[in-house]
Amino acid sequence: MSDKPSVLRETDEEARKLARMLLRSAGYAALAVIDPDNGFPAASRVLLGTDIDGVPVILVSALSAHTKALSEDPRASLLVGEPGKGDPLAHARLAIRCRAERVDRATTLHDRIRTRFLGEHPKAKLYIDFPDFGFYRLLPLSASLNGGFGKAYLLPGEDLEIRSVFSETIARDAEAIVRELVLRRPGAVAKFTDKLKTRASRSWRISTVDAAGFTVIVGENRLRYDFSSPIDSYENLQSYISKVTYSIP
Amino acid sequence: MSDKPSVLRETDEEARKLARMLLRSAGYAALAVIDPDNGFPAASRVLLGTDIDGVPVILVSALSAHTKALSEDPRASLLVGEPGKGDPLAHARLAIRCRAERVDRATTLHDRIRTRFLGEHPKAKLYIDFPDFGFYRLLPLSASLNGGFGKAYLLPGEDLEIRSVFSETIARDAEAIVRELVLRRPGAVAKFTDKLKTRASRSWRISTVDAAGFTVIVGENRLRYDFSSPIDSYENLQSYISKVTYSIP
Repeated sequence: MSDKPSVLRETDEEARKLARMLLRSAGYAALAVIDPDNGFPAASRVLLGTDIDGVPVILVSALSAHTKALSEDPRASLLVGEPGKGDPLAHARLAIRCRAERVDRATTLHDRIRTRFLGEHPKAKLYIDFPDFGFYRLLPLSASLNGGFGKAYLLPGEDLEIRSVFSETIARDAEAIVRELVLRRPGAVAKFTDKLKTRASRSWRISTVDAAGFTVIVGENRLRYDFSSPIDSYENLQSYISKVTYSIP
Repeated sequence: MSDKPSVLRETDEEARKLARMLLRSAGYAALAVIDPDNGFPAASRVLLGTDIDGVPVILVSALSAHTKALSEDPRASLLVGEPGKGDPLAHARLAIRCRAERVDRATTLHDRIRTRFLGEHPKAKLYIDFPDFGFYRLLPLSASLNGGFGKAYLLPGEDLEIRSVFSETIARDAEAIVRELVLRRPGAVAKFTDKLKTRASRSWRISTVDAAGFTVIVGENRLRYDFSSPIDSYENLQSYISKVTYSIP
């Protein structure tokens, strides 16, 4: 397509880890869609969650412009990664090209997503069941990672997915799994949040768990911990959790 | 277009003020463009400034995907308004539908934009003159303001522009105007930043001035002060500045 030298770096495991972390620890995103009235791109802010297979999900109102757009054209893009202090372009961000699929309300898929989403966004309880609200799964097709100046990578969409035979079990028993983890390893998550330099005295809770890791909410912060590889059994999960306190850099 | 009751509120002066504040105090934005290869919308992060007429400007590299997209299709959307603590959807944000116009390097327009942009983003000095970098003006066509749940407004693009016969003078003499303002009213901006509860001991500076107001950078924060109406003379500017300390709520 171009004679110019590529500015892309070869995608390595570190880049994949960073991309996953950015997506899985994001509580909101910028969503870009195509406005069906004029063909313009349209950006908006959306609350973000992930399904058990790692696919990002959004909760949107049928009255909003982005939902009308997605119902006519499923092509979309999600931008995640909050800039912190200093130059906004020095902070890592991930843009995901995706295809939106509406989630039918009367399905077990909907129930699974609803439960996980409320774990991530408890305040959404106020409107999650309004008749005009609904979920879309945004299937990742490809992603563009920018890890700071001169650090650009392209990833296939599947690098963001979580594939495990254990996923369905986790989705079904998530609440019990989280409860048991916290009971059996009361210090593990606290140490985890300690090491990430959040205030130890703050209350924390595990918001979601999946085969690739878990997300902890501490005050206003959202922390993601990914296992070194996706788990495929309950024993495997226990074993990873017991290592949490040692595996944090 | 729809039989549904409108969820839009009537746009009032308060909404216009909020929209202007969100745009003029933003240091970065999410940019949505159309990917010419596949027609998908594509979101990315860009550094943002404003021209003397209030038009948002971005500094982009010709090597980046968004620049390639804009060179083939000028339709774009900008999302500004940082979420703070709490629910990301409770924080105001503004999406601007706009048409991108490349700024030719060998023009006085380019010089004006370059000077203002460096005022807003001093670190951009490292790459602003690289041959692959350039500016686009993003002419606002319309804007969608979301001031929190249930507070949606539509604005015509002109509501974001700054029209004043004095603009060219300010653009030309900006540095001298800022210097004199600070000399004559040494306490004004400090009181302004004090009232906005930033740490008084922090260093501050006026980054840009235009006919509608001025922007102050205090540490990592960017504060915008808009006059009650655009100024049209030097005396008018002085008079507004002398009122700054009294007019902050």
